[in-house]
Amino acid sequence: MIASETPVLAVLCGDTRPPDMRAIEAEAVVRYTDAAGLADALSGADAFFVYDFLSTAVPGAWHAADRLRWLHIASAGVDPVLFPGLQESDVVLTNSRGVFDGAIAEYVLGVVLTFAKDFARSWDLQKQRQWKHRESERISGRRVLVVGTGPIGRSIARMLRAAGMSVAGVGRRPRAGDPDFGDVYASSELSRHLPGADYVVAVAPLTEQTKGMFDAEAFGVMKPGSRFVNVGRGELVVTSDLIGALRDGPLGGAALDVFDTEPLPAESPLWTMENVLISPHMSGDFVGWRNTLVEVFADNFRRWRAGEALRNVVDKQLGYVPSETLRQG
Amino acid sequence: MIASETPVLAVLCGDTRPPDMRAIEAEAVVRYTDAAGLADALSGADAFFVYDFLSTAVPGAWHAADRLRWLHIASAGVDPVLFPGLQESDVVLTNSRGVFDGAIAEYVLGVVLTFAKDFARSWDLQKQRQWKHRESERISGRRVLVVGTGPIGRSIARMLRAAGMSVAGVGRRPRAGDPDFGDVYASSELSRHLPGADYVVAVAPLTEQTKGMFDAEAFGVMKPGSRFVNVGRGELVVTSDLIGALRDGPLGGAALDVFDTEPLPAESPLWTMENVLISPHMSGDFVGWRNTLVEVFADNFRRWRAGEALRNVVDKQLGYVPSETLRQG
Repeated sequence: MIASETPVLAVLCGDTRPPDMRAIEAEAVVRYTDAAGLADALSGADAFFVYDFLSTAVPGAWHAADRLRWLHIASAGVDPVLFPGLQESDVVLTNSRGVFDGAIAEYVLGVVLTFAKDFARSWDLQKQRQWKHRESERISGRRVLVVGTGPIGRSIARMLRAAGMSVAGVGRRPRAGDPDFGDVYASSELSRHLPGADYVVAVAPLTEQTKGMFDAEAFGVMKPGSRFVNVGRGELVVTSDLIGALRDGPLGGAALDVFDTEPLPAESPLWTMENVLISPHMSGDFVGWRNTLVEVFADNFRRWRAGEALRNVVDKQLGYVPSETLRQG
Repeated sequence: MIASETPVLAVLCGDTRPPDMRAIEAEAVVRYTDAAGLADALSGADAFFVYDFLSTAVPGAWHAADRLRWLHIASAGVDPVLFPGLQESDVVLTNSRGVFDGAIAEYVLGVVLTFAKDFARSWDLQKQRQWKHRESERISGRRVLVVGTGPIGRSIARMLRAAGMSVAGVGRRPRAGDPDFGDVYASSELSRHLPGADYVVAVAPLTEQTKGMFDAEAFGVMKPGSRFVNVGRGELVVTSDLIGALRDGPLGGAALDVFDTEPLPAESPLWTMENVLISPHMSGDFVGWRNTLVEVFADNFRRWRAGEALRNVVDKQLGYVPSETLRQG
């Protein structure tokens, strides 16, 4: 584009507008909108910032996107905007890779330690003023399978390895000697490697291939007493199968930050299961994350205006930023 | 001693006898006793295994120790047996250094993450089936002061550093460039370094010098919102001053595994303070710890029978195994 033209930017946000947009407002006509106004905002827009990254409103308003060239989403997972209309278009899709990695890795290590050290029970006993000594587990040497080897999975693997755990990955490209994962096994071999793991961490992108990959068959081969951690997407899991595996075995526990329906409905049996830790899709959302998300967008916006290559360009067929691209970046 | 003589070993234990003592029972006359029978058991005993390591019964029965040459305690802290009668005697004192290091380090990392990720509140909200998103803290780059640079403190420093935190130590010998602590500051300079720490971890041995070192003056200079973790001994802390600093500031929270009175009395206000995590002196007690404690004792027992140098000989004036000795070991 010619830099002297003022581009139109549509920003999908809920009640909370993105902070610190002044630099962008100086360079573009910015149309803030909620889901109801989205089609109007997209009509004539050159760029589109999906700040409300869990919104499902984009496909329904897509018909109005008559001159859109770039869509940026304020999340790592792009599944809410990965629909045929976008995939088949020339619109470039970028994501917010890197923002959440470290915080999610800390969260995963925290829930692993919460299980091993029985902290939830300590918290319950404290409320009853009960002094009840128990023995606790070591995490050192315990085996973790990280399913998903993108940047977040890598950050998790690095953190758990640093804390003394024995880590392997499951991903698209099997390989040995990875500095963070050690061995990476092929996704097609998942069921062979689940039985050896004390902890299984789901952090794969949600695609047609990964949807429902954690089902009764997968849970059925897991080690008795092992724990399942989901920081990817709720739809990676067949929730009724997870509940069955927690109730009847083999699972010893689950820490869940994401769910197939969010907020998790009040009637879900997961809320009251003793061996389940629930958090409301917040594992990556550290203090300052919203500002960081806008910084990542602003950096790409500057590149877009200058005609430079954008960062974090998503392969719209794969559904994520391929790691080959990352290595070049 | 002449190996053909059968030595007499007194073992102080409560309701639970040490496991796996068969190898030792084949080599010694073993007298298992509780506090009430301790004086009788010590009379004529050559060696003494204090398995009930929190018992306060040893000083009162010491008069009966008429031929004792060695006392081994099943803990890292030796304060329950460090009284003038033992200090002035020729009895060699050894401890169970090394058994608890890794488990306590994992516990400390776990409570740090519990604070940063607000897990206790997530657990409360879960019980109310409430979905309430919050932002959470990163631990990366946060500053920790580990007060106590023995093997447990070192293990904590190593673990927190591996998890991305910025660590320094406080100990007897100030130095720079320690592989685990980085900088170690002199204990006399504690108050200069407390204000910079986001987390302060107490893991010093309990001696005349360290008793009550965390008092109103020390808490008073800590950073507003900082957290205090005690995995050393309850008596390192003036409990009423800790309660004041939690109630009125500057402390943002405390994780306490040890207390000046154990079990913590039901009337203690600590039980119900929202920003306090209580566990019942269990941070080091991993599954299998009792067997490991007996293995450590059995190793020293074999050395003692063979006339070899014992491991983990405590300096009875200092009150711990000096690290100079450890480096030689």
